[in-house]
Amino acid sequence: MSGIASLADIRGMIAAIPQGDAEAGTAIRLRQSRLTKPPGSLGRLEELVEWLGAWQGREEPRLGKVEVLVFAGNHGVAARGVSAYPASVTAQMVANFETGAAAINQICKSVGASLRVVALKLDAPTGDFTTGEAMGEAEFVEAVATGFAAVSPNADLVCLGEMGIGNTTAASALAAALFGGGGERWAGRGTGLDDAGLARKRETIDAGLLRHKTHHGDPLHAAMIFGGRELAAILGATLAARHSRIPVLLDGFVATAAAAPLYRLRQDALDHAEVAHCSAEAGHHALCADLGKRPILDLDMRLGEASGAALSVAVLKAALACHTGMSTFDEAGVDERE
Amino acid sequence: MSGIASLADIRGMIAAIPQGDAEAGTAIRLRQSRLTKPPGSLGRLEELVEWLGAWQGREEPRLGKVEVLVFAGNHGVAARGVSAYPASVTAQMVANFETGAAAINQICKSVGASLRVVALKLDAPTGDFTTGEAMGEAEFVEAVATGFAAVSPNADLVCLGEMGIGNTTAASALAAALFGGGGERWAGRGTGLDDAGLARKRETIDAGLLRHKTHHGDPLHAAMIFGGRELAAILGATLAARHSRIPVLLDGFVATAAAAPLYRLRQDALDHAEVAHCSAEAGHHALCADLGKRPILDLDMRLGEASGAALSVAVLKAALACHTGMSTFDEAGVDERE
Repeated sequence: MSGIASLADIRGMIAAIPQGDAEAGTAIRLRQSRLTKPPGSLGRLEELVEWLGAWQGREEPRLGKVEVLVFAGNHGVAARGVSAYPASVTAQMVANFETGAAAINQICKSVGASLRVVALKLDAPTGDFTTGEAMGEAEFVEAVATGFAAVSPNADLVCLGEMGIGNTTAASALAAALFGGGGERWAGRGTGLDDAGLARKRETIDAGLLRHKTHHGDPLHAAMIFGGRELAAILGATLAARHSRIPVLLDGFVATAAAAPLYRLRQDALDHAEVAHCSAEAGHHALCADLGKRPILDLDMRLGEASGAALSVAVLKAALACHTGMSTFDEAGVDERE
Repeated sequence: MSGIASLADIRGMIAAIPQGDAEAGTAIRLRQSRLTKPPGSLGRLEELVEWLGAWQGREEPRLGKVEVLVFAGNHGVAARGVSAYPASVTAQMVANFETGAAAINQICKSVGASLRVVALKLDAPTGDFTTGEAMGEAEFVEAVATGFAAVSPNADLVCLGEMGIGNTTAASALAAALFGGGGERWAGRGTGLDDAGLARKRETIDAGLLRHKTHHGDPLHAAMIFGGRELAAILGATLAARHSRIPVLLDGFVATAAAAPLYRLRQDALDHAEVAHCSAEAGHHALCADLGKRPILDLDMRLGEASGAALSVAVLKAALACHTGMSTFDEAGVDERE
């Protein structure tokens, strides 16, 4: 069980997050400096191995068990014409994930990761945030707890992604509530909105922000008002991973926005998470900047469903292979710097 | 045999380069548009599959046989103190590649590529370009022919990289000769030069450019004067791949500079090549811009030895897995756009 049954439990879990293992990080840096390459010449590959080790608490990090979690939810706000696709697609894509026919299935196979899809009450969309709150407190807590419980405590790395027609609108509104700005700053074309659709999306976000303007102060409340069940589950899974010493790869715009309330509650709460891919979705670049995160990949992807996070696993595996398999200067008999 | 025995043979091979298969590209684009994802939402993954297919001449591209070629050479200019490492390291690193203990060995294993290392007369460094030409015509042609012959005609993809103490100086001087600017624009810290070393490197490049200023006009002559055997071999391998319908991944700054004379001779000569990784080496960003190439990865790596190219293979494999393994909207019963 997750041990999360109330908003107070969530706050307690955030207050109690453990820190990384600085000694493991130091040992990894020391080994990197002795490997047969100019110091630092593997760039982010070196940083990522140190990050893995520090958060796993292991001088010899592992990537044997990589878990990709895709959470799916439906959104009341989808009825406002803010997506190029009908809301029916959320459940259809979940079925597509389950038959192994979607992009994420192929990427997981390609990089050697396991996939689990968690659908959250798809037949009961969240409320429309322009007319009320997306979720009540109990609904929000339940979704966070579902995400928290979905993380296998023995995973070496967790990749978090989502599926939900309309959820870039929810993510944009949430990002706006957390970091300021409105629809103009945060809304993008999602799965392919035309100009009229984009204008509707911006107006919808601004209407929601206006309606709830006195309630932005608390990041968890903002997640409740503007988010969705799959976003809340990602927040829960991010928190669970921290408590289980599992590094996290956040997929794209929606997954990053979903975890952002943790950062707003305490700035070190996402130190165990990297953003995997800079989405082509308009708001992601700004959101990463606000969080101080530099995405690992930038390949113009804007699919969601954890595709960018799973793809980044290949980079981490190669980075770890270098760290583990290379010889030191001494072992190889290679001369050091002059 | 390569069929390359003279400069005229090289020019003939460049004049006779084949073009990509536009029909294969069109068929791939059509299939991409039917897969269960918003159009274009896999971004560069979609473009890269189309590029693979067009240059392989296959509607169903393959990545079963990926060949990583690392060419190694020594440079007379290394005696001028333009590297943080002694020239002895080139041969030592070749030995390290052969025992499987370097970064490139681990990355090749991680992504499923085969590695071949071709050392080019390491005990006879090229001439110092500040006092003469790096290579005479016969030496240059021989190195190009060696690279040309190194490419397996049945490879599905070739990754080209290098090892050579002092070769970022050669690459910088070559880039300057081809695209203008001097040491200030093109020289970086290579494997880790300090400020004094960087100043020496810039002066060395500028001295070479001044000495040979009347001979820059012909790109192949520039490669002869400023380049090195491993750079010439990369040029030859790039040309061979084009003739064998094999797409090419160029590794970093040195590999990109090595192939650049082909672009200067005809602008379409590198259309079958992608730059795999934007090197942290100072001149690479400018060089990619001059060539109109956008690197696939940007991970602050500056190691060379084909490390960035081999790492990019993981991205291509995942991209191809998506293209091949995903269902279409019809097959999956997923609703299309409204």
